[in-house]
Amino acid sequence: MPGNSFGQLFRITTFGESHGEALGVTIDGCPAGLPIDLEQIQTELDRRRPGQSKIVTQRKEKDSINIVSGIFEGHTTGTPITLLLFNEDARSKDYSHIKDIYRPSHADYTYAAKYGNRDYRGGGRSSARETAARVAAGAIAKVLLAQSGIQIQAYVNQVGELMLNKTYEDLDLSQTEKNIVRCPDPEMAEQMIDYISKIKKAGDTIGGVISCVIKGCPAGLGEPVFDKLHADLAKAMLSINACKGFEYGSGFSGVQMKGSEHNDTFVKDGNTIKTTSNYSGGIQGGISNGMDIYFNVAFKPVATVIQGYETIDKEGNMVQTKGKGRHDPCVVPRAVPIVEAMAALVLADYSLLTRTIKL
Amino acid sequence: MPGNSFGQLFRITTFGESHGEALGVTIDGCPAGLPIDLEQIQTELDRRRPGQSKIVTQRKEKDSINIVSGIFEGHTTGTPITLLLFNEDARSKDYSHIKDIYRPSHADYTYAAKYGNRDYRGGGRSSARETAARVAAGAIAKVLLAQSGIQIQAYVNQVGELMLNKTYEDLDLSQTEKNIVRCPDPEMAEQMIDYISKIKKAGDTIGGVISCVIKGCPAGLGEPVFDKLHADLAKAMLSINACKGFEYGSGFSGVQMKGSEHNDTFVKDGNTIKTTSNYSGGIQGGISNGMDIYFNVAFKPVATVIQGYETIDKEGNMVQTKGKGRHDPCVVPRAVPIVEAMAALVLADYSLLTRTIKL
Amino acid sequence: MPGNSFGQLFRITTFGESHGEALGVTIDGCPAGLPIDLEQIQTELDRRRPGQSKIVTQRKEKDSINIVSGIFEGHTTGTPITLLLFNEDARSKDYSHIKDIYRPSHADYTYAAKYGNRDYRGGGRSSARETAARVAAGAIAKVLLAQSGIQIQAYVNQVGELMLNKTYEDLDLSQTEKNIVRCPDPEMAEQMIDYISKIKKAGDTIGGVISCVIKGCPAGLGEPVFDKLHADLAKAMLSINACKGFEYGSGFSGVQMKGSEHNDTFVKDGNTIKTTSNYSGGIQGGISNGMDIYFNVAFKPVATVIQGYETIDKEGNMVQTKGKGRHDPCVVPRAVPIVEAMAALVLADYSLLTRTIKL
Amino acid sequence: MPGNSFGQLFRITTFGESHGEALGVTIDGCPAGLPIDLEQIQTELDRRRPGQSKIVTQRKEKDSINIVSGIFEGHTTGTPITLLLFNEDARSKDYSHIKDIYRPSHADYTYAAKYGNRDYRGGGRSSARETAARVAAGAIAKVLLAQSGIQIQAYVNQVGELMLNKTYEDLDLSQTEKNIVRCPDPEMAEQMIDYISKIKKAGDTIGGVISCVIKGCPAGLGEPVFDKLHADLAKAMLSINACKGFEYGSGFSGVQMKGSEHNDTFVKDGNTIKTTSNYSGGIQGGISNGMDIYFNVAFKPVATVIQGYETIDKEGNMVQTKGKGRHDPCVVPRAVPIVEAMAALVLADYSLLTRTIKL
Repeated sequence: MPGNSFGQLFRITTFGESHGEALGVTIDGCPAGLPIDLEQIQTELDRRRPGQSKIVTQRKEKDSINIVSGIFEGHTTGTPITLLLFNEDARSKDYSHIKDIYRPSHADYTYAAKYGNRDYRGGGRSSARETAARVAAGAIAKVLLAQSGIQIQAYVNQVGELMLNKTYEDLDLSQTEKNIVRCPDPEMAEQMIDYISKIKKAGDTIGGVISCVIKGCPAGLGEPVFDKLHADLAKAMLSINACKGFEYGSGFSGVQMKGSEHNDTFVKDGNTIKTTSNYSGGIQGGISNGMDIYFNVAFKPVATVIQGYETIDKEGNMVQTKGKGRHDPCVVPRAVPIVEAMAALVLADYSLLTRTIKL
Repeated sequence: MPGNSFGQLFRITTFGESHGEALGVTIDGCPAGLPIDLEQIQTELDRRRPGQSKIVTQRKEKDSINIVSGIFEGHTTGTPITLLLFNEDARSKDYSHIKDIYRPSHADYTYAAKYGNRDYRGGGRSSARETAARVAAGAIAKVLLAQSGIQIQAYVNQVGELMLNKTYEDLDLSQTEKNIVRCPDPEMAEQMIDYISKIKKAGDTIGGVISCVIKGCPAGLGEPVFDKLHADLAKAMLSINACKGFEYGSGFSGVQMKGSEHNDTFVKDGNTIKTTSNYSGGIQGGISNGMDIYFNVAFKPVATVIQGYETIDKEGNMVQTKGKGRHDPCVVPRAVPIVEAMAALVLADYSLLTRTIKL
Repeated sequence: MPGNSFGQLFRITTFGESHGEALGVTIDGCPAGLPIDLEQIQTELDRRRPGQSKIVTQRKEKDSINIVSGIFEGHTTGTPITLLLFNEDARSKDYSHIKDIYRPSHADYTYAAKYGNRDYRGGGRSSARETAARVAAGAIAKVLLAQSGIQIQAYVNQVGELMLNKTYEDLDLSQTEKNIVRCPDPEMAEQMIDYISKIKKAGDTIGGVISCVIKGCPAGLGEPVFDKLHADLAKAMLSINACKGFEYGSGFSGVQMKGSEHNDTFVKDGNTIKTTSNYSGGIQGGISNGMDIYFNVAFKPVATVIQGYETIDKEGNMVQTKGKGRHDPCVVPRAVPIVEAMAALVLADYSLLTRTIKL
Repeated sequence: MPGNSFGQLFRITTFGESHGEALGVTIDGCPAGLPIDLEQIQTELDRRRPGQSKIVTQRKEKDSINIVSGIFEGHTTGTPITLLLFNEDARSKDYSHIKDIYRPSHADYTYAAKYGNRDYRGGGRSSARETAARVAAGAIAKVLLAQSGIQIQAYVNQVGELMLNKTYEDLDLSQTEKNIVRCPDPEMAEQMIDYISKIKKAGDTIGGVISCVIKGCPAGLGEPVFDKLHADLAKAMLSINACKGFEYGSGFSGVQMKGSEHNDTFVKDGNTIKTTSNYSGGIQGGISNGMDIYFNVAFKPVATVIQGYETIDKEGNMVQTKGKGRHDPCVVPRAVPIVEAMAALVLADYSLLTRTIKL
C-alpha cells in the first residue's frame, strides 16, 4: 500500500537509496521449482548498468547481484526471493552542493514537501538507481514467462526528433542489442548516437520513446474493469523515472481513425483465432486476445543538465548552480531493459492470476 | 485483487452487467461526516447519461441513483456506501443476433477465451455502462476533495482530426458544459458537433482526446517508486473503456525537448513555492508539487459501427452482420465526467494516504 | 483495506446496516462456470434466520436472497456476484430509546468515538445482521469447495457450563441440524435448549462454544509465515460478532502436553500420508496436511439483556434503561452457519491461491 | 498476498531461511521523522536471541542488526526500511540426517506437499528463526506507538500445568524481565524454570501461555466487520510458530458467564469514559474503547524432541530417528518479545489507518 510494492501474486517490493548501503528487491509469490541462473539476472543488470557506453552516465556501479533468500539448489523454493546490490561508487560528496537546494524538475522539493525531510545524496530513494532492483526482479519474471513461451522485447524508437518511421513488424529486433543506443535500425541508431553525443557535449539532455513488443501471450490475460492488462502496463511504465506517456495499439494516432477502419477483423487460422489487423494492440476489453501486444513509452529529457541554472534553496532564496556528477544525456538506451522488466512483472502477475479464473 | 476494485483507502468495487438487474458500486473508506446530496450524484450521472443529446446514443436509461447503505441523516457514516442503478431500458432482444458471434474490437472473444462463457447481452460486464457506477462514486470523491479545495475539470480537446490548439490556460473551462460535445471553445465545439453528426449519419464512429486539469492539489500527494501519482492516474484512465493512451505534462511532445528547455524553474511567490513553467504537469518524482496537474487521454473510435461487416462466430465460421441498437458515434462527450470521476477517485485515495506519511 | 472486505482471490465485500435499505455482499473472484442454485443460498440463510425457533430472537426478517449480478443462465460468469437482502421488519422506533445512550458491551460508544457519529438504529453496521451477507457468500464458497470434496460442518459444543465431553469423532454430526440448538448429541441438545429457555425467561443471556470440522481438505493449503491457514481461520472467526476466542487442534489444552505426547506420528496408508493422532488439527507450519481440520470458537453472552441496567448517555450522565426489542438469549445456535460460512470463505480463498504456487 | 507480508499501512515483508545467507525485513509505510536508535532494536532482538539462558536453545546466533535502507541521519525517511540479520552459526550439517524424512508435527511434509521441494536445513523458511525479523520490525513499531503513549507488555502466564492464578492487574509487570522465564511472579518463575530444566533434561518439551497487555491505546482503533482489532491480533498471534490458540478479554471462560454479569458498565471519570469492569478486553465491536487491551496466546510443546521417535521418509518408509541440534525445551520465554512485536505491528497499522477515518 505505501508504494514500494508492485504486483499482486507475483509481487515485488524494492528498497534502498542511491547512496545507502544497498539496493534490493524481494519477490514474493514466485512459483516453486523455477530454475534460476545467476548469470541471466546479471546479464539484464548489465544492460541497465551505468558506464556501459560513451552515451550513458560514466558512473561505475558494477551492480553485482547477491541472492539472500528463496533459491535453493538452483531453483526457487516458493518462499520470498531477496536480491541485493551493494552500492560501491557512491561518492556522497558529489551531492553536498545540492543539500539545501531544490533542483528543477527533480523530486527534491516534492520529497521535502511530502516527508518533511530528504536524503539529498544522489536523490536518495527518488534516484533512477532504484530501477536496478526492478530489472533484477524482471529477469526472474522473464524466466517464468519463457516457460509459457512469452517473450518481451523493447527498443528505442525515438530520440528527440529522430524517429523510426517503421512499425515493429518492419524491423529486425534481433539487431537491438547490437548498438549502444538500442535502436534495431542500424542507420537510425548511428544518427541517434551522434545526436546524443552532441547533446552530451553541450551539457544538455534529450528525451526519447521506447517501443515494446510482447509475443506469445495467450488469450485471456488481464482483468475486466479496473485491472485491464493495458491499464497495468500503463501504470508499470509511468512508474519508471522520467516517463511522461503511454499508448498501446493504435494509441494517440487511433483517435483520428474511424471505427470502420480501426476495427480488427477476426479470422480463423487453423485452430487459432486471429485478427487481420491489430490496432487493438493485442488487448480487447482489457484482456489479451493472443495477438502481439505492443506499446510506446515516452521519456522526458533527464533533469540534470551540466549547464548552469537558477533555482531556489529550501529557504526560498534564489541560487545559481550547475549539474555535477556523471549523468545520462538521454535516458532511453538504459531504460530499454527497465521497460522490459516492468512488462515482465505485469505479465507474470497476470499469468498467475489467470490460473484462478475458471473451475 | 480480481479486478473489480479500485483504490486502497478510498476504495470502490463496482458490480453489475449491462442487461442484468442493476449496476452498483460500494465505496469503502469514505471518511465519516461528509455531507452527501443525492442531487450532486444525480447531476454527475446526468452528464454521462445516454440520450442526453443528438450526438450520443439514444438509449433511454434514466440512471436514477439509489442509496443502499452508508449514509445516515445526510452524512456519510464511515461504513460502506453502496449505490445502485437499476437497469430499465434493457431490450435484451437487441442482442440476440450477436449471441454466437465475436464482434470485432469488442471484448466478446476475449471474455469467452478467459471465462469459457459470456453474457452476450449488451456486452454484459464489458459494457461501458459499468462506468456509470464509477461516476456515482466519483461524485462522492469530488465532495471529499472539494473540502480541501481540489477541483477537477475535463473537456474534449480533439475529435478525429479536429484538435484545439490551445492549452487549458488559454481556454475558459466554464464554457465546457455549455455545449453538447463538451469542448470549451464554442467555435471548435460547433465544428466537432457537425463532424460527429456526419459520422453518425454514415453509420460510423470516430475517436477523440479528453484533457483534464486538477487545480488546488497540495504538494505531497503520490507515492514514490511504483505508486507515483501520475502512474495511478494513467491506470485510472486506461481502465476506461476505449482508452488507448495517456500523457501528462509535456507528454509525448516533451520527448523532443532538451533538458535545459524542459526544466521548470522554481521561484518563491509569497509563502508558496511555484515553478515558472509547468512541463512537469504538477507532478515531480511521482509526487504533486502544488502546481496544476494536467493530462490527456486518448479514446479510439467506438467499435460498434452500424455499417455491415464481416466477422466469425464461436465455431470460427465467417458471418456477415451489422451493428444494431443505439450506440455512440463518438465516446468523448459522455466520457468527460468519467475521466473526472476516475481522477477524483485517485486523488481521494492519495489525499487519505497522505495523512499517514508523517509523524 | 478499510475493513469491509475479506479474502484476497475469493474476495467478499459486505455492506448495509441493520435498519437501512438492504444488506448485501459482493463476491469478486469466484471462478466462472460454477452452477448456482438460489435455494442452496436460501437454505443457508434460513439456518441463520431470526425467528426460526423458540430459543432465538423472534424478529421476523425473511432474508430472501436477490441476485443482482454475476450469475447468468444458472452459472457464475467470473464477474462480481452481488447478493441483496432487503430489510423488512425494521421497526426503527424500537431503537429511539437508545439514540443517545451507550449500551454496555455494545459497539455504541466505540463507533461514536471512531466516527464521530453513529447509526443508532439496531446498532447500524455493528449489528450481527451483517453476518447474513457472509452466510450468503459462504453458501457460494461451499459450492466451490464441494467440487474438490471439501466439507465443513460446525455444531454447538458448549452453552454456559453445559459442555460436550466428546470429540467430533465420537459424535454423529448428521444429527446437528435435527434440533434447534444445533448440538449433535440429542441428550445434551435437550439440556441446552432447556437452559437457554430459562435464561431467556430471566431476561438474561449466556455464552457458548461452537466446534467446526473441515473434511476432505487436501494437503498444501495455507501460506507460510503470516498467512498460515489457521491464522486466517482465527481472524475469520474473531471477526464474527461476540466471538472471544479461537483454538485449533490441541488448542489451549495442548499447552499442558509434552512434545513426546503431542507429536503426531506420520504413517503411510496406501498412497496417502496420514498421522496416527491429530493434535496438529490438520495444519502443520500453517499449511494443511490432509487430515481433518478442527477448531473451537468461543462466544460471549449477548450484550442485550432485557433486565434493567445502568449506563451513560453521550453527555456522560448516568441513565437507567433496559433492553427492548427481540434478541437472542444465546448466540450459538444461529452462529453455526456463520462459522461454517467464514471457514468456507477462508478455504475458497486458499484453494484458489494454491493454484499459483507451483510451475 | 503470497503470505510473507503483514499489515496494510505499516506493512512488513520478511524474507530469508534459517540457514540461508540472511534473514531480513522490509517495513514500508513507517512515517518519516521517527528517531531510530539501533540499540533499541538490538535490545529487543537480544530478548529473543538463542543462547540467552540455560532454559533456551544453546544455538549461538548473535543476531546483530544491519540497517540497509530507510534511515538517514538517525531518523526514518518515509521510504522502506530494510533490516538484515546475517546467519552465522548455521551448522548445516546438523540437518543432513533429516534431509529425506518428515519430522512429526513440523512443517517438513506440508512444505514438500505444497511446493514440491523443501529447504531441509533447519526447517528453511518454516523455522522460528524468521520471527527475529518480526521482532526487529516490531521494535520500530514500538517507537512509533510510544509517541502516542501506547505500551505493550507480555509475560509468561503458564508453562505446562504451572499457571499464574492472577490477572495482569495483580502482577508487577516490571518484574517480567528480571528472570529467565519471563514470568512477573518471582515464585512462580522459579517453579517454571525448574520445571523446564527437568523437561530439557528428559529430552522433551512443554507448552505454555503468554499473556499480553496493551496500555494507553486510545478509543477508536480497529475496523468494523472483518478487520476487528481483536481479529487482527488473533491472526497476528496465530501466525507465530507453535501458536495454537488466542482469547481476549473474558475469552473462553466468558462463555460461562451471563450477559448481566459480563456487561461492562460505562462511567464517566472526569472527561474520560471508562468501564467499571473490563470483560470486553478493551475492545467493543472490534474497536478499542480506551481501556486496557489484554489477551492470552497458547503455544504447543516444541516439536523437536531429543528423544528417539519413529516417522517416515519421503518414500513413505518407516524410519527411526531422534532430534539433534540445540532446541528450546519450551518456546514461551523467547516468544514473549515476539508476541509484543506482533501486537505492536497490529497497533501501528491501525493507528495509521485511524487517521483516515474522519474528515
